[in-house]
Amino acid sequence: MTAWVLEDGFGLEKLTRSTRPLPQPRGAEVRLRVLAASLNYRDLVVVAGRHGKAITTPLIPVSDGVGVIEALGEDVTGFSLGDRVCPMFFQGWIGGEPPLDMHACALGGPLDGMLASYRVFAAQGLVRIPDALSDVEAASLPCAGVTAWSAIAEPRAVHPGETVLVLGTGGVALFAVQFARAAGARVIVTTSNPAKAALLRRMGAHHVIDRTRTRDWAAAVLSLTDGRGCDRVVELGGAETLNHSLTAVRPGGLVTLIGNVTGSRAELFLPLVLTRRVTMNSVSVGSGQAFERMLGAMTLHEIRPVIDRVYPFAQVPAAFARLAAQEHCGKICISMSTLDGAAPGRGA
Amino acid sequence: MTAWVLEDGFGLEKLTRSTRPLPQPRGAEVRLRVLAASLNYRDLVVVAGRHGKAITTPLIPVSDGVGVIEALGEDVTGFSLGDRVCPMFFQGWIGGEPPLDMHACALGGPLDGMLASYRVFAAQGLVRIPDALSDVEAASLPCAGVTAWSAIAEPRAVHPGETVLVLGTGGVALFAVQFARAAGARVIVTTSNPAKAALLRRMGAHHVIDRTRTRDWAAAVLSLTDGRGCDRVVELGGAETLNHSLTAVRPGGLVTLIGNVTGSRAELFLPLVLTRRVTMNSVSVGSGQAFERMLGAMTLHEIRPVIDRVYPFAQVPAAFARLAAQEHCGKICISMSTLDGAAPGRGA
Amino acid sequence: MTAWVLEDGFGLEKLTRSTRPLPQPRGAEVRLRVLAASLNYRDLVVVAGRHGKAITTPLIPVSDGVGVIEALGEDVTGFSLGDRVCPMFFQGWIGGEPPLDMHACALGGPLDGMLASYRVFAAQGLVRIPDALSDVEAASLPCAGVTAWSAIAEPRAVHPGETVLVLGTGGVALFAVQFARAAGARVIVTTSNPAKAALLRRMGAHHVIDRTRTRDWAAAVLSLTDGRGCDRVVELGGAETLNHSLTAVRPGGLVTLIGNVTGSRAELFLPLVLTRRVTMNSVSVGSGQAFERMLGAMTLHEIRPVIDRVYPFAQVPAAFARLAAQEHCGKICISMSTLDGAAPGRGA
Amino acid sequence: MTAWVLEDGFGLEKLTRSTRPLPQPRGAEVRLRVLAASLNYRDLVVVAGRHGKAITTPLIPVSDGVGVIEALGEDVTGFSLGDRVCPMFFQGWIGGEPPLDMHACALGGPLDGMLASYRVFAAQGLVRIPDALSDVEAASLPCAGVTAWSAIAEPRAVHPGETVLVLGTGGVALFAVQFARAAGARVIVTTSNPAKAALLRRMGAHHVIDRTRTRDWAAAVLSLTDGRGCDRVVELGGAETLNHSLTAVRPGGLVTLIGNVTGSRAELFLPLVLTRRVTMNSVSVGSGQAFERMLGAMTLHEIRPVIDRVYPFAQVPAAFARLAAQEHCGKICISMSTLDGAAPGRGA
Repeated sequence: MTAWVLEDGFGLEKLTRSTRPLPQPRGAEVRLRVLAASLNYRDLVVVAGRHGKAITTPLIPVSDGVGVIEALGEDVTGFSLGDRVCPMFFQGWIGGEPPLDMHACALGGPLDGMLASYRVFAAQGLVRIPDALSDVEAASLPCAGVTAWSAIAEPRAVHPGETVLVLGTGGVALFAVQFARAAGARVIVTTSNPAKAALLRRMGAHHVIDRTRTRDWAAAVLSLTDGRGCDRVVELGGAETLNHSLTAVRPGGLVTLIGNVTGSRAELFLPLVLTRRVTMNSVSVGSGQAFERMLGAMTLHEIRPVIDRVYPFAQVPAAFARLAAQEHCGKICISMSTLDGAAPGRGA
Repeated sequence: MTAWVLEDGFGLEKLTRSTRPLPQPRGAEVRLRVLAASLNYRDLVVVAGRHGKAITTPLIPVSDGVGVIEALGEDVTGFSLGDRVCPMFFQGWIGGEPPLDMHACALGGPLDGMLASYRVFAAQGLVRIPDALSDVEAASLPCAGVTAWSAIAEPRAVHPGETVLVLGTGGVALFAVQFARAAGARVIVTTSNPAKAALLRRMGAHHVIDRTRTRDWAAAVLSLTDGRGCDRVVELGGAETLNHSLTAVRPGGLVTLIGNVTGSRAELFLPLVLTRRVTMNSVSVGSGQAFERMLGAMTLHEIRPVIDRVYPFAQVPAAFARLAAQEHCGKICISMSTLDGAAPGRGA
Repeated sequence: MTAWVLEDGFGLEKLTRSTRPLPQPRGAEVRLRVLAASLNYRDLVVVAGRHGKAITTPLIPVSDGVGVIEALGEDVTGFSLGDRVCPMFFQGWIGGEPPLDMHACALGGPLDGMLASYRVFAAQGLVRIPDALSDVEAASLPCAGVTAWSAIAEPRAVHPGETVLVLGTGGVALFAVQFARAAGARVIVTTSNPAKAALLRRMGAHHVIDRTRTRDWAAAVLSLTDGRGCDRVVELGGAETLNHSLTAVRPGGLVTLIGNVTGSRAELFLPLVLTRRVTMNSVSVGSGQAFERMLGAMTLHEIRPVIDRVYPFAQVPAAFARLAAQEHCGKICISMSTLDGAAPGRGA
Repeated sequence: MTAWVLEDGFGLEKLTRSTRPLPQPRGAEVRLRVLAASLNYRDLVVVAGRHGKAITTPLIPVSDGVGVIEALGEDVTGFSLGDRVCPMFFQGWIGGEPPLDMHACALGGPLDGMLASYRVFAAQGLVRIPDALSDVEAASLPCAGVTAWSAIAEPRAVHPGETVLVLGTGGVALFAVQFARAAGARVIVTTSNPAKAALLRRMGAHHVIDRTRTRDWAAAVLSLTDGRGCDRVVELGGAETLNHSLTAVRPGGLVTLIGNVTGSRAELFLPLVLTRRVTMNSVSVGSGQAFERMLGAMTLHEIRPVIDRVYPFAQVPAAFARLAAQEHCGKICISMSTLDGAAPGRGA
């Protein structure tokens, strides 16, 4: 089989195509023929070697993908040949509290990821994908989709009629807009790219705040909510946006911390929190059970992930280059459909 | 001012039109000019004298209505002349746990209700009504609307993608269909009246089960959910439906007990609960804060109550007769708009 | 190795000593040398063949026990040789929602149980036992202990100062008394055996109601709570006690349904629930994560299970006879310590 | 009647003894004869004029106190002459969500506080005090006690067996130690004053960390919890302690932000939160219903507030001076018992 591998050390230039023996499933494992993969910002950090010492080479990178079950170990129950499945981002987190060592069971580092034609997984680390989603759509879900779902719907869903503020238009943000709409919320999105406003409105955003024109977007949110503030913030900014988000949220509201693209050291102005009973929580992707609940909502609401561009397997470096350029809108995906002469997967 | 009063003893035939002095607000009280009222099954029980010893005459019946603030006590804050408001069903339940004696502060018995041209209330027992709702629509909300909202959205909202089963097409049931849709749920409704199926589908029900043709509706629900069962049941039946509802709900699901129209003594088959981790809770209308959250959702989702018929104030007995006949669909309302030559309220 | 087995058909008289090959762990499995086991009422039902068609012979019965890890499959992480562990009652329920087919992964039927000198389990189905507990104490925990813990502490713990009513003095009841005390609750217990009152008081029960003298124990609970009712009931009675429990609980309180020893068809008087916002939930043992949280509380509070009597492995039928006689107080246990010349486990 | 009043402008030197007319209760109000008061750090800030523009003079300062009902308005229900009661810190927060303008209904500024021989309050803003508490003990509860209770027990109580870290030995901290013990938690306290270690141990703290000797107290907490971290932190430090608290808490744990004595601008290191699913919430005293639940727990567990020193009413300035010196341990109280020749209250 074929894979993109960091054989010895990090750096996009070291990511090379490699041939490996076809892996065999044992016990409760299955072998997937990989159909598609998708890129997250984390993958760029991992490939660059900036993720930390827990991730070492050799490594097959990229956490997110979808495959079809092609071989079954003798103890597998609940799955059949031909099932289309996504591996969960954290292989050991089925439900409830994650395992204490959850970061040790993350795909795409430290565990091998999806940039391979075949992969073997424990059956309990897989989630079955509904027919309505194409392969590249399914591949876009495990990290960004589940993260957004956890922010909007776990453990307590946004209530219908509540107002949700989503910062930006990255992968998690777009899913958050869709899920918040499905939950019956009013959705406000900030963007620094006016060109994306139309897309956001088509996706159901009630209000789009152009940060290039409205510098004080927290004040704009207060204005849109009669001075009261929004009920929740999906906080994807980090250091530069945190105090603005805390200003925009209502007393008793919730700010869910996910990203730190603008920096890791935030100045937190405590009175914004202390006298206003604000809660800040954080989300690390989510469990397999959360993944399944998300798929239920996506099926009912016919939610389709926003796909930026699909690259063939041979052009993985170009896909990473597009991600690094940060000009995409929606998920950057890799399709294996023409690889090795394999039959194409659904929707490919 | 004028009112319908049970002066001395119960029975619809004893409900008579009576003239009373105009009440004056003191302290933190306001006087409402009543604009509209609506009837609930409970009002029929109260008027018939079958509600229990805690309710005595003389009594102005009917819990639900809307009015406009016409006079303010000197300590009132937060309300102005001209505000259109609904009194909360339980006057003392602002939020959190209700007061221990909450049934002592219910409108329409033991406290006087809304079948009067003017009423005085403590300002903290009122909820402001959005402009989008007409007077009769607003009048339909305090008991049936808030009860349905509490079942669907309090304290934990239905999650998007969950399946909600609603029994029947009474006032609470129709609101529950609307709120469950707003929360992003899949909605299944049972009805014994095929003529109502079209209305239910227009309101957003995904599946309508005709109980006259599908006797085993619990099996039908299981079939619609791939054998798994629905996530929640809004249980409005009582003795005859409870075990069916418990069969239709999934392991770990929730059955919210509200009504007992088919009887008060249910045979509960415990194994349906014990081995399946099912929760049964119950709803007693809800707090003023729940009322306000409901109005927020109604505004965002442009939810309009289903009104069966509107009677003028002079024809209150005819309105009760229609309720007793149980052939209505939606709320039976009373409009005061032409009363006493008063200026009509909004939407009347 | 040696085991008690129902080789072909049910009935205590068919439970026979049998020799089987020593099982070998593969992959992520371990082999336990069993140190002790304990009996639950469910085991009696299973052995009698009254549990239902899902449980078939041949079967090694009894769900609860403790063992020491003696051999490790090559993929095991997180456990070492010599670790003392209990298998979880539901082998597949780590945390969060249980698997849909959880009853298919119950020990002691349909899966083989603990009446054997050696057993092999997947490592993820095991919980490590603190040193402070003896072998027979540890063996008493997986079903009765975790069930009581789930009733008292999951997902929302009893709050300090709340009042908990526990019905009876069976295995689950005694654990519930201990855990409710640890949570800072006031504890009321009912018993029909005055001789047990002294034990219950030593265990920390604040009030013991003798049901032989106080027939209307619900009224007694109301009296002990100034007419308000208790906050929670651990409802272990079933058909005959349910309405009394619903009478004894406060408005807004919780009745946790666990047992049905007095029958499966309860007459539920709906007004006790409908106008009082009472919740009834139910507990099916609990997850492995709940088991671990329970052990944390037991260690801090130095809680020791109440052991009725310990039988040697050769006298398993006598142990079942004592359980059937229903005269025990605390857990009936089996010790393997002198079996096969094995070195004795801790506390044996 | 007599009161300490800031007649015109702020500053401890402007706090003067003043005579005012005896206030008369109307409607649903009662008049209290004040029995005792207690000081919080907030009172010092208010008196110094550093609390913000919402608080103006003339003002009777000090939020916390207890009184006996001496006169009833004609609409009062639920209270009787002679009842001993505490006014709630936020007069309008009965339960559920607080009112949006809750800071406008805080006692001791902007509303008049308890440094007066008589005060009139709405009955719904009062909480009845159990006999077991003395007057000064009761007076110490409304702000510091309820704040600690909200951190430990609302809305989800600490579970038995969980580990709670409390920072420091101020008024809120000491209550938090007591309530965490009552909830069955393991309690770790940090202090910079070794002399207080013995008191903390007597109060039930399992571990006391002397910050003067153990600079890296977060590491000490990790060591005490086998490297896992504590389940909750009662974070009373603010800017200087926040990141240490986030280091000391386990993945998935809760840091409750209450104080900012070391500064308002904290540098928050986001990775401590983002990859570890940590939640930070905050507490603003609490509702009247929380107050009542706290009293229930205090009665059952016979919890007595730690009183530092009691001053007579005439020596209020000395009491403030002791608070400003920050050398106290426990609550600084004012007793009115010998004032005006009044009969002494309970426990004075």
